[in-house]
Parts: sequence; structure tokens; C-alpha cells
Amino acid sequence: MDIKKLVKPNIRSLRAYQAKEIPCRVKLDANESPYPPFAVHSSQFTVKKLNRYPDPEAKLLKQLLARGLKVKPENILAGNGSDELIYYLITAFGGPVLYPTPTFSMYGIISQTLGEKKIEIPLDKSFDLNEKEILNKIKNKKPKLIFLSSPNNPTGNSFLTSKIKKILEITSPVTRYSSPSLVVVDEAYQAFSSKKSFVPLLNIYKNLIILKTLSKIGLAGLRVGFMIASPEIIKEINKVRLPFNLNSLSQEIAVTALKNKRLLKSYIKQTISERKRLLNEMKKIKDIKPFTSDANFILFKVNPVRNKVSNGVKNADTLYKKLLKQGVLIRNMRGVIDGFLRVTVGTPGENMIFLKNLKKLV
Amino acid sequence: MDIKKLVKPNIRSLRAYQAKEIPCRVKLDANESPYPPFAVHSSQFTVKKLNRYPDPEAKLLKQLLARGLKVKPENILAGNGSDELIYYLITAFGGPVLYPTPTFSMYGIISQTLGEKKIEIPLDKSFDLNEKEILNKIKNKKPKLIFLSSPNNPTGNSFLTSKIKKILEITSPVTRYSSPSLVVVDEAYQAFSSKKSFVPLLNIYKNLIILKTLSKIGLAGLRVGFMIASPEIIKEINKVRLPFNLNSLSQEIAVTALKNKRLLKSYIKQTISERKRLLNEMKKIKDIKPFTSDANFILFKVNPVRNKVSNGVKNADTLYKKLLKQGVLIRNMRGVIDGFLRVTVGTPGENMIFLKNLKKLV
Repeated sequence: MDIKKLVKPNIRSLRAYQAKEIPCRVKLDANESPYPPFAVHSSQFTVKKLNRYPDPEAKLLKQLLARGLKVKPENILAGNGSDELIYYLITAFGGPVLYPTPTFSMYGIISQTLGEKKIEIPLDKSFDLNEKEILNKIKNKKPKLIFLSSPNNPTGNSFLTSKIKKILEITSPVTRYSSPSLVVVDEAYQAFSSKKSFVPLLNIYKNLIILKTLSKIGLAGLRVGFMIASPEIIKEINKVRLPFNLNSLSQEIAVTALKNKRLLKSYIKQTISERKRLLNEMKKIKDIKPFTSDANFILFKVNPVRNKVSNGVKNADTLYKKLLKQGVLIRNMRGVIDGFLRVTVGTPGENMIFLKNLKKLV
Repeated sequence: MDIKKLVKPNIRSLRAYQAKEIPCRVKLDANESPYPPFAVHSSQFTVKKLNRYPDPEAKLLKQLLARGLKVKPENILAGNGSDELIYYLITAFGGPVLYPTPTFSMYGIISQTLGEKKIEIPLDKSFDLNEKEILNKIKNKKPKLIFLSSPNNPTGNSFLTSKIKKILEITSPVTRYSSPSLVVVDEAYQAFSSKKSFVPLLNIYKNLIILKTLSKIGLAGLRVGFMIASPEIIKEINKVRLPFNLNSLSQEIAVTALKNKRLLKSYIKQTISERKRLLNEMKKIKDIKPFTSDANFILFKVNPVRNKVSNGVKNADTLYKKLLKQGVLIRNMRGVIDGFLRVTVGTPGENMIFLKNLKKLV
């Protein structure tokens, strides 16, 4: 039987997301925190009631998050990672779905999975939003959802606040020039940024949705993402949410972690200061071009070697493979932004090993 | 701004699934195991690497499951509860989606969420499949997916094996009378049944998909469901699966639990023998009619009171509320199968409290 014939047409051409585990000594490929989580080694959490379904509303977790963000629990919806929330957003509101490229791959993958149209708009030369083109497409294609990851993955920069505000304004239902859209500002990496969060702007822009996650700040294993928006939007997403989408343990450990914010923040500080050091060291290396980052990773371009039958793309591939041979796993951006590599900021020791090998290999 | 106008039409009329937590002393409403999980109190599992993303393939878990079921890991896909797998099945294959009623509510809810047509076929008087009507609808409406929960929730009975086989045959792509469909046999409650699992029939029916879960056998808090099917089908579902859908802790504790199967099985045995005792006691009570069950719950009808201005539906409502007042929470099936209540088999002590109050109240 050809199962493919039963599959929906939009799924047929999809390929499964490749998230293979590659053995390595130093893991700097997935933008995880290098610091294992605090307070979770001990038996501070109880697992006595695992025979019961989890709290479907994740009440305790939402209360804590709300307090920290100065919003109400009704402004929050928790998900099995931000991925699940993106799935729900596109399920509830549909497409077209507009986003800049390169960016976090799941916006496009999930749009295709759910059979919704994608509108991809390349970033400008400084990796910022191409405002003119985006406004033009909003006018002509009337996207239902706009995803803006800021700081952006994999480029590392935050988009200009004024550009995001302009997009929010033009898609707001109170303006008269355009059709309304929901603007999703994905702040997965915002903890590492010098720019302010968009959360306080929720009162101004009713079409604003913010995504956040615990994955980049030390708790990727839990799969806890959350969405902050008006209660009206949260209510609609709740309709398409699976009732028990967040397991008991992830809820419980996330709560424990959020009660221990000081330690959490100290790790973020450490990562920011390491990022600075790493960037400075990388800048000294000829033949690569690292980019300033507002996130917990650094994107860098591998220059083509002059006077040789070679190019940047091949060089990036080769460098990636050579680093892996030394046990250092980073991310090859081939297919997303050719000729570029992305390294997660690790512990001082991990970064030293990466730098030592990088210097030797380029 | 009226957010509703931005929401897809199929979502507008949806209501969020009501999974509210109701305070109670004896919780017999959600078909959970009454026994807290084994081996999880202790620190048998490590939580050192929660800063890392979970294994996207859930390899260890799939290996263990495969061994127990005598299939290959390629035949298995793990999900954040069976709910998520139902979501993925309907996302990948689309509708129409056929299922009998009353049954597990998520087949219908998720179909509507994803904008797919539903074909609902009432069960016959003995709560078994209406074979003739199902075959008729298969012929005329060509469903892509058929969901058969066996044992069925909330009726508790298993469907006749011969009827399920007939449906599998007529929708198989090798027969000539009909269009092919995938038949999903949801074995959430199969551990409590005297009937055999459909897993060994995977070799015969290429359009067979089986769902199983750890939620009913002691680990509802983990949210671990899994699907067993041909590698060809698993491959297609993997395309629509979120890469890190199963968090690290749930993977780890599920593995620990599955290594401890003897204890798991002893709890199942206890529940089966309690079910027998509970049913016998319920049969002695006038004015209710309990139904034989192959699952970890018992459905019962509340009879209308003769010579009074009253009816069964109202009586069921009243009985449900009175029990709750005594701290005993069961499930009111109003809206699903009016006039019926469903009680989960609890510990001997819990069942005694339930029976004592039931006898007093009817």
C-alpha cells in the first residue's frame, strides 16, 4: 500500500525535521544554556501524584510567570515548548503566515504542515527587517500572522524596535490602511538582549503576541514555552490547545526554577559576558567574520579563500566537519544561510576549546 | 478589536475543552490508576541534563516499548499523550474522520480544530459497532481515518473483534469494493481487557494503526502516548511531529517504569479484581443499571423514578451532585450519553466510600 497517497498533499513534500543527536565532547550547536539547572538535583519536587493527570491550566506556573512579567495569569498560555504554541497559533488563525528569512525554521515548517501559505521576506544586509517590503506584502497579501523572532535566530541581532512598532501599527485593526494581522514577537533569546521586552506594550497593541521559553535559559529538557497576549487571544488559542499539554513534572520543576530566579539570572549574566569575550576573540581570527549578537550564540561567516579553487560555502562545511572531528559540535547553517556557521556560547572552558580549535583550523 | 474575526471559521464555534479541577476527597472521574507510580519516589532518575533538549527520537523509550510489544522501534512513535498523536494523524491524513458515538471526545474535537469533516455513527443497543451503517458510510463518504476506541470510553465494552476486522478488510487498499482508509484502534484501556491486542495483526493489515498510553496504568502525569504502525505510516507522522515533543523527564521516568513491569501488572490485576467486585455491588443497587466493563471504569444508567415528575437525566445529575457533596467525584456523562454516570475503579477503600454513598443516595 502506498501510504503516501493517503497523506495530505501539503505533507507529501515535507521532510521530517532533522534533530539527530551527534556525539561530541563540546556541544555548542543548539543554543542551550551550558549550565545544568539549579535546585533540580535535589528532591525539592514531589512526584507522588504521577498517576493523576497534570493541572490542565498550569495555574501555579502561570501565576509565577505573570508575577514576573507584571501581567495577569489570563494573559498567559503555557505550551509544550514554543513550538507547540506556534502550531496552535497557525491552527487557530491560519495563513498566510509572514516572516523574514533567515529565521527560526519552525514558522515555515509548521505553516506547511498545516497547509497554510508562507510569505518569506529576506532580511536586509544588516540582518534587519526589510520594512518597505514587509509593509508592501502586508498590504497586498493580507497575512493573518506575522512572526518576528527578536533577537533573531540564526543572525543573533534584535530588529529595530521602531520597525516592529511600525508593523504592529499598520496591522492594528484601528488603522484604516490595511487588513489586521496578529504580530508574534518571539522573544526566545530576549533574556540575553540589551533591548527591552515587548511585554509592556501589550496594552498599546491589541494585535501583539509574545512568545517566551525556558529552553534557552537552562531548562530545554522540560519543554516549557509560553505565550503572552490579551485574554481575548488567549481564549481563542485555548480552544485548540490539547487539555493536558504540559506534564506534571515540567510544571513542577519550572515552578521550582522560577522561584530561584537569582541563580537563573546569574547564569544569563555569565553567558552575556562570555559572549563578549568570545566575539572579541573570534574577531581576531582572519578568514571568519563573526556578527554582533544579542542572543546566546554567535553567527559567523567563513570567508572564501583567495587564489584557491574554493568558496565560502565549501569552507564553512569543511570547518564544521573539522571542528566535529575534534569533538566540537556547532551548527552548520547550510541551506538556511550558506557559508555561515553558528556557535552557542558555552562555559568559559567550552569556549576556550572551541576557540583553540577554530584558530588551528581556519 | 474583535479577535474572533481573525480566527478560522471552524475554530469560532469551538469551545475550549473543559478540564477543570474539582476539589474532592475521592477522585474517580478521570480513569486514572489509583496507585501512585512505583520506583519514581526515589532518585532513580537523573535530572542533571535538563539544560539540554530531550532526545528527539525517544530512542530508549521506543526500544523498551518495542521489546514489550514484539515489534521494531521503527513501528513506534511516542507522543505527548495519545491526544497529540490524534492531532498528528488528522493533520497528516485529513478527513473525513469516522468514529462511533459515544466515544472518546478528542476524535471529534481535534477534527473540528483542524477543520476536517466528522462522520459520527451511533453504537448499537449493546454498545457495539453498527457494522452495517459503518460499512455504508465508508462506501459513500470515503473517510480517511476511522477511530475505534476498544475498550470504548465511556461505554467500557470492547467491540467485537470480527467487526473491527471486517472494517480493516473493507478499507484495506487491496480490496476492490472501497476506497482505502486508515483504521486507528485506540487501545488506551486494553490492559484491563480480556480481549487480545491488535498489535500482532499489524503484519496482516497495512492500514492498521494502534494507539496506546501510559495514562491509564499509573502515569497520567507524564503524558506519554504511543502509536504502533507500519514504518511507512510512522515516517509520514514523523513529518508533522514537533521535533522535541516528549520532554526529558517523561522519557526517563517512562523508561524506569517500563523496566518495572511486574509492579505495573500487579496494579492492573488489582484494578481488574476490584472492577468485578464493584460491578457486583453496583448490580445489587436498585434504580441504577451498571454495564459490564473491559476497562478501568464502569458506566451506569440512572433509572427514572416511577410515579414521580422526574426522569433519568435529572436523576443522574442529582446523584452526581450529591456524591460530590460527599466528596466523591465521578464523571457526569450528560451531553455525551444523557442519564449515565461513569465511575473509575479506585482502590478498595475508595470504592467502598463510593458504594456506601451510592447506596445511601439512590
